[in-house]
Amino acid sequence: MQRNSVDLNSDMGEGFGVWTIGGGVDEAIMPQISSANIAAGFHAGDPCTIANTVAMAKKFGVGIGVHPGYRDLVGFGRRVIHASSEELVNDVVYQCGAMREFARLHGMDLSHVKLHGALYMHAAVDETFATAFVHTLHTLDAGMPIYCMANSVIERIARTCGHPVVREFYADRDYDDSGSIVFSRRVHAPEPGEIARKVLRACTEGRVATTDGGDIAIEFESVCVHSDTPGAVQILKTVREVLAQHDVAIQRPVPRYC
Amino acid sequence: MQRNSVDLNSDMGEGFGVWTIGGGVDEAIMPQISSANIAAGFHAGDPCTIANTVAMAKKFGVGIGVHPGYRDLVGFGRRVIHASSEELVNDVVYQCGAMREFARLHGMDLSHVKLHGALYMHAAVDETFATAFVHTLHTLDAGMPIYCMANSVIERIARTCGHPVVREFYADRDYDDSGSIVFSRRVHAPEPGEIARKVLRACTEGRVATTDGGDIAIEFESVCVHSDTPGAVQILKTVREVLAQHDVAIQRPVPRYC
Amino acid sequence: MQRNSVDLNSDMGEGFGVWTIGGGVDEAIMPQISSANIAAGFHAGDPCTIANTVAMAKKFGVGIGVHPGYRDLVGFGRRVIHASSEELVNDVVYQCGAMREFARLHGMDLSHVKLHGALYMHAAVDETFATAFVHTLHTLDAGMPIYCMANSVIERIARTCGHPVVREFYADRDYDDSGSIVFSRRVHAPEPGEIARKVLRACTEGRVATTDGGDIAIEFESVCVHSDTPGAVQILKTVREVLAQHDVAIQRPVPRYC
Amino acid sequence: MQRNSVDLNSDMGEGFGVWTIGGGVDEAIMPQISSANIAAGFHAGDPCTIANTVAMAKKFGVGIGVHPGYRDLVGFGRRVIHASSEELVNDVVYQCGAMREFARLHGMDLSHVKLHGALYMHAAVDETFATAFVHTLHTLDAGMPIYCMANSVIERIARTCGHPVVREFYADRDYDDSGSIVFSRRVHAPEPGEIARKVLRACTEGRVATTDGGDIAIEFESVCVHSDTPGAVQILKTVREVLAQHDVAIQRPVPRYC
Repeated sequence: MQRNSVDLNSDMGEGFGVWTIGGGVDEAIMPQISSANIAAGFHAGDPCTIANTVAMAKKFGVGIGVHPGYRDLVGFGRRVIHASSEELVNDVVYQCGAMREFARLHGMDLSHVKLHGALYMHAAVDETFATAFVHTLHTLDAGMPIYCMANSVIERIARTCGHPVVREFYADRDYDDSGSIVFSRRVHAPEPGEIARKVLRACTEGRVATTDGGDIAIEFESVCVHSDTPGAVQILKTVREVLAQHDVAIQRPVPRYC
Repeated sequence: MQRNSVDLNSDMGEGFGVWTIGGGVDEAIMPQISSANIAAGFHAGDPCTIANTVAMAKKFGVGIGVHPGYRDLVGFGRRVIHASSEELVNDVVYQCGAMREFARLHGMDLSHVKLHGALYMHAAVDETFATAFVHTLHTLDAGMPIYCMANSVIERIARTCGHPVVREFYADRDYDDSGSIVFSRRVHAPEPGEIARKVLRACTEGRVATTDGGDIAIEFESVCVHSDTPGAVQILKTVREVLAQHDVAIQRPVPRYC
Repeated sequence: MQRNSVDLNSDMGEGFGVWTIGGGVDEAIMPQISSANIAAGFHAGDPCTIANTVAMAKKFGVGIGVHPGYRDLVGFGRRVIHASSEELVNDVVYQCGAMREFARLHGMDLSHVKLHGALYMHAAVDETFATAFVHTLHTLDAGMPIYCMANSVIERIARTCGHPVVREFYADRDYDDSGSIVFSRRVHAPEPGEIARKVLRACTEGRVATTDGGDIAIEFESVCVHSDTPGAVQILKTVREVLAQHDVAIQRPVPRYC
Repeated sequence: MQRNSVDLNSDMGEGFGVWTIGGGVDEAIMPQISSANIAAGFHAGDPCTIANTVAMAKKFGVGIGVHPGYRDLVGFGRRVIHASSEELVNDVVYQCGAMREFARLHGMDLSHVKLHGALYMHAAVDETFATAFVHTLHTLDAGMPIYCMANSVIERIARTCGHPVVREFYADRDYDDSGSIVFSRRVHAPEPGEIARKVLRACTEGRVATTDGGDIAIEFESVCVHSDTPGAVQILKTVREVLAQHDVAIQRPVPRYC
């Protein structure tokens, strides 16, 4: 039951004006991935950065995804804001459109949407927001997949209304026995080889070892490597090599429920 | 050579968050116009205001135009910013897309683009910016007309590349003999009837009296009434009445060069 | 045990750029109050608005207070942001300093600090933030009173460390039997006379009737009338008249714990 | 006529939220300088970054200067905004106050003000703004020196009204025969040793070689090394070493006209 291919996604374009994340690491990451989640201006990303990032994604044949976040530059979209679901959905629509227009300028369209940071987590647990978001997105673009965590509230709602999703496996995060991501700081940063083996096993066996000492089944269509993880470029290269050696191609995902 | 119809346009949605212009005068203006220039978030307009304004425009069959401005909330887009043409064009693309997405949510598309404030004036005189803007817009949406002043730099460039424009007549501004708008403060605010007669004559004779004591020919496809002109609602109603009495219908414009 | 005087406070300067609250009602309110809570730029208020509002407060002998809020223009500081206490305290220090400099320009100093909206409520209930805020403010300016609700967490912490507070009575809000403010919408807006009688009784008897049908004791040094309550100017005038008739002067407060 | 000491200043705290300039080079630069120009929130700098930078300056005995800029995060204050002098002066007052409050929290006061980027250049040439700025600053704090270029408009105005200034020598910029800074890109980045010898000669002989092949007299109280010049830390260390070898101490400046 080994898969023949998997999607690799990273967050891209998360600078603002003169500021960048990782000192311009985007140029090195883009050729390694198949799907880019591009910051859309609310937590990061200004129009020039977006224009450059979209052009770069096109150049490397990478899917142009929109990565909407809370309106919170100073907090980088990592702080929950108690906005209404209506406010948040309108914020997302606004950001989707801004990004879609830059894709349109290149004769392309958005490949997917992945919410950012605290808004991603909010959609994973909040029934009201997730419902409003999925329904609005379905009206906007019924074929545009939502990147999300398996078994999250948003995944269930998307399934209910037949909206495509792409479930993610986090290469550079640990899982516990419940399948949840462990956010506590680790004593040592994992080596690229170690991460690559974890991804390979997830792709070929559909399983991952947990921080609780267990071993769980995991389902996903895409592997996420965070661009601000130290050594992200080397991690991506190693993951690609190891997957290639085992005949797993890196390519855009086949969403579920489509 | 009297015209049978003319477009009436106003700026709409120029609040931000709790703040509005004119205390919610948009609801009264929208039924009176045929084209709305909706603020897109940089000089005014937040996603909820945009969503509400687009829905209102649709309800009244009013064209949903995007009204991009400089990124300058505190200055309301009225202050020139020495940004590069590339920066400004990307700012405009971003705002167009954001607005287009809200139209898309209603199964509609943008009807036009009208730059706001200092950016409108910049495009009227700056060859480099006007060229970059028209060419980018032509790539994005070759059929979406640009609202502009007759004989401006941007009108000439649009004509050169076959991009449609809608030239404006300013109902609530004075002209001098050169055809330029006079920005000096007037001693008295014009009465609605006076404005309506000016618009009627412009529509039926194609002429307007000037502040220099002259009388000039004027060409346009749309009449602009600023929503923040005191008494804007009454001005619009009077203009409509007077035009109706003379069999000039209010409807969306037929652009030139299309 | 009737009091001889009471403070009257309102939020002032809550516009931004071209936008105002209540269409410029500040000019009418300022002469009626003794303490102004001036928006400091994060939820409302830009440097020019601040400059004008501070000058107006000085002209009428009104205390220049700073009214810091969450960094959230679009939400007007009414939405909780899950920021750390350190972030929030630094936001407050920043806003205090900005306002203090405008007072300094007039040879004056800040009279008080009153947190705004969701941040005011956060300080009323959150031990960690309230502690960090009070301690930092005590280091900054040990004599500058904090406006707050009686029996709130922040009042208790201020008392513990000997920092002066001014407790507020909300003229235009209802109380329940627990002494909490009732935020539900009322069927009818209260008349100015009704509000004035409530304030008078609070000042002379120290009691207020509740929405539960009860009657409770209430302690305060200042009466707050919200500048965006419809009819705020008339409410303030009526309150002043009624208090004057009963020999209660309107003047800056004598804080507690100083 | 060799000087015994000179001031060394750099821009500090020019990040925003998660973003930094030079990946956290501030920690390495701060111990090398005597005066810090700390970004105040409009072109860069958020309250937490300010708090940390002020604490760091205090730790190393470095003067806490405020570095106000245009309100333009995305343009990093490098773009002229056609704001009125009143608007700009209020923007500066606001930023001065915010920074002064963080100094106050440490029992300190501001050591100086240096305008940033396009606003620095605006004050160097614009009579109206420079006059309004100097007069307001003189009212605010008659003893707080303004960092500026020798022979600029602002220097002349400050001299006229007896306000102290500190004139700067730009270690990492070239001069032409007129004494103006040459902004064109150079073929090679100068070596630290080369820069140090240039600074030494400016300090000991009061002269600098020009890009026109000439050699001009130069007057200054402070040497500026830009923190975003590549190799800034090594440049500063080398400058300090070379100056120390020639008995020129690094210490806060003695302003003129005080």
